[in-house]
Amino acid sequence: MKRLRLTTSYGAALPFDASKPGLVLAVLALCSTMPGCARIQAKSEPLPSWSEGPAKQAILDFVRRTTDKVSSEFVPPEDRIATFDQDGTTWVSHPIYTQLQFAFDRVVALAPQHPEWKTLEPFRTVLVRDQAAMARFSLNDLETIVMATHGGVTVEAFRTIVRDWMARAKHPRFHQPYSQMVYQPMLEVMRYLRDHGYKTYIVTGGGQEFVRAYAQQVYGIPPEQIIGSALETQYTYNQAGQGILMREPKLLLNNDLAGKPEDIYLFTGKRPRAAFGNSSGDRQMLEFTQGAGGARLMMLVLHDDALREFAYGPALGLPDTRIGTFPQALYDEARHNGWVVISMKNDWKRIFGFGKPLVERVTD
Amino acid sequence: MKRLRLTTSYGAALPFDASKPGLVLAVLALCSTMPGCARIQAKSEPLPSWSEGPAKQAILDFVRRTTDKVSSEFVPPEDRIATFDQDGTTWVSHPIYTQLQFAFDRVVALAPQHPEWKTLEPFRTVLVRDQAAMARFSLNDLETIVMATHGGVTVEAFRTIVRDWMARAKHPRFHQPYSQMVYQPMLEVMRYLRDHGYKTYIVTGGGQEFVRAYAQQVYGIPPEQIIGSALETQYTYNQAGQGILMREPKLLLNNDLAGKPEDIYLFTGKRPRAAFGNSSGDRQMLEFTQGAGGARLMMLVLHDDALREFAYGPALGLPDTRIGTFPQALYDEARHNGWVVISMKNDWKRIFGFGKPLVERVTD
Repeated sequence: MKRLRLTTSYGAALPFDASKPGLVLAVLALCSTMPGCARIQAKSEPLPSWSEGPAKQAILDFVRRTTDKVSSEFVPPEDRIATFDQDGTTWVSHPIYTQLQFAFDRVVALAPQHPEWKTLEPFRTVLVRDQAAMARFSLNDLETIVMATHGGVTVEAFRTIVRDWMARAKHPRFHQPYSQMVYQPMLEVMRYLRDHGYKTYIVTGGGQEFVRAYAQQVYGIPPEQIIGSALETQYTYNQAGQGILMREPKLLLNNDLAGKPEDIYLFTGKRPRAAFGNSSGDRQMLEFTQGAGGARLMMLVLHDDALREFAYGPALGLPDTRIGTFPQALYDEARHNGWVVISMKNDWKRIFGFGKPLVERVTD
Repeated sequence: MKRLRLTTSYGAALPFDASKPGLVLAVLALCSTMPGCARIQAKSEPLPSWSEGPAKQAILDFVRRTTDKVSSEFVPPEDRIATFDQDGTTWVSHPIYTQLQFAFDRVVALAPQHPEWKTLEPFRTVLVRDQAAMARFSLNDLETIVMATHGGVTVEAFRTIVRDWMARAKHPRFHQPYSQMVYQPMLEVMRYLRDHGYKTYIVTGGGQEFVRAYAQQVYGIPPEQIIGSALETQYTYNQAGQGILMREPKLLLNNDLAGKPEDIYLFTGKRPRAAFGNSSGDRQMLEFTQGAGGARLMMLVLHDDALREFAYGPALGLPDTRIGTFPQALYDEARHNGWVVISMKNDWKRIFGFGKPLVERVTD
C-alpha cells in the first residue's frame, strides 16, 4: 500500500493512508498554520519488507522517540550511531562465511606460487576440495589460511582482488552473486535510520578491508564506517620510491565479542544508540549499546526460516556447534534485557531483493 | 575587505570585489543565462589571516583544482580527505606538549593516592617541580608518566578529567586557556576545506582520547575524525552489571612517523588529498598523501616567529634537540617533493584569535 509520508522539519515521519485523501487534506490545512510542518513528500511506507509486529514496531518507535524534537528522549544528530554486525545479520553466513569461501578460492588461485601447498595442511585439504575435512577445520587451520591469503599485498591490490572475486563468485545454494545475498529488510532499516540522521556502521568479526571493498555498493556505507578485524599494515616504499601500505600476516584488531565495543569506541569515540546482531559474538556490542541508558534499540536476527534461508541454533531445539550461532543463553539474555528478537520467518515478508538494483535499495 | 562570494551549484567559489558593483551586475546578468549559477552569498574572503603569497595561493589553487567540476583534477566529495597534525601544526607545542603538561598536573592530582611517588622517579621530579630535570626526561620517563596518568579509568571518566583540566589550565607564556592556543590561520584552512566538501581529520602523535575531549569545541571536528595514539581498552562490567570500557596502560596505536599513514588507512580506508604537518613525525603522512598522484596538497608549518610564537629548528640555523622538530633533512625533502613550507612570520597576518569565540571560528 502506497502512503503519503508527511515529514516535519525535524524529520519525524507521520504516515497517512493515501486512500483517505480527506484526512490528508485536513492535515494539510492544519499544517499550513503550524511552523515546521511544510515539507511533504509522496514516499513509500518505510520498511515495506517487514510484517506488522513487535520487531517493526520497535524500530519505528525507537526512531520516533530519538528524532522527534519534542520527545524527552531526543538524540542530537551527532550522537545518532547505529551499528550492524554483518554475517548472519545483514547477509547470509551459511553454509560458510563468505570471506572463508574467498580465502579457499584464494588458496586455489595462489597455489601455483606455492608448490609446497600440495602436501602441506591445511592447504592440501582445500586444493583437493575435501569438503568434509574442510568442515572440520579448526580455528588454527582457518587462521593459517586467512593469513596466507590476506597478507603480502598492498591495501589497494587487496581491494582489487576482493572486488574481482565478488564480481565472479556465487552462493552455492542461491546461485546469486554474494552482493545479492544481503537481507532486503536490513537494507531498509539502514536506509530508514540514515533518512533520520543516523550514521550506519558495519561492525564485523570479518575482515575490515574485505568488507570495505564492497560496502558502498552493497550497503551504501563508506569505508570509514566499516569497523572489522584488521591485519597490521606496514608503511614502506615501492620501487618508484612512493609510500605504500603492505598488509602483514599479523592480527591488529580482533573485532569480535568484547572487541566490538572496544573497536567501536576506538573508531568513533561514542556508544551506539542502536545495534543489530545475530550471535554470541554480538552480545557485548548490544550490552555496550544498552549500558548508557536512554532510548536504545538492541535487536538480534533469529534464523528460523529453513525454507527461504536457513534455520539453526539451539533456540529452535536444534543442536548446532558451528561458530557464529545463537545459543539459548543469548536468547535468555535478550529476553531479560528487553532486546528484540527478529524472527526471519514471521517478521520478514521477503528476505532477498533479487533483481532490484542495489543502488536503488541503499540510496535515496 | 568584504567580498561577495558567487557560488555555483557545484560549490566552486568565485570572489568578486564588492566595491565594483558594475562588474558584479554584469556577471549576474551573464549568470542568469547559465545553468547552475544561481546561489549568491555575501561572505567574507576566505583565509583572512593569511598574507598573499605562495602558501595561501597553494591552498586556493588546490581547492579550485579539486572541487571545480570542469577541472581535470576534480575529486568526488567522498574522496575529499584532509589530515592535520596537531602539536606545532594546529596549536602551540612549546615550551612542552600540552598533553605532557596535563600528565604532569595529573601526577600532582593523583599523588595522594600514590604515597610511593614521593621517592619514586620519575614521579618525584614532577612532584618537587624540578623543571630542569623534567626538561631532561627520557622517552621512557615520559611513557611511565603517561601510562600512570592516562589509564585505569573508564573512557567516559577520562574525557571528563581532560575537559575539567582544559577549562582550568593556562599556557605559561600567553596566560590563555590551551583552547585559545590554536592557530587562527589553520582554523581558517580547516573551515575553508570543509566549506568545499572536505572532511577534516586530526592525525596526532598525541593521545586520541585526549584530543577527542575538546576537538569539537576547538576545531569543529567530531570524535570519529580524530586519529591519534591510543591505549588499549578493556570491555568489562561495573557494579551495576553494565558494560564499560576501561583504559589500560598499554599502547595499541603509536600514531607517529609510519604510524600516521598506517592509522589513517585503518580508520578511513583512504589516502588523504591534503596533509599538514610541522615535524619529522609527519614526513610519512605527507609522502603517503602525495604517493597516489593527482592534485595533492602537502604543507609544513615552519616556526620562525620568536616574537609572536616561537622559533626553533635547524632550518633557522638554530641547534634543536627537542622532539617534534623540523630538521634540515625534512626541509630538503619538502623542497625536493614540492611540499609547501608555511612561514609563520611571513605567511600569517595573525597567529591567534584571542577573544573571538571558538564557535564562530570553526562553524559556518
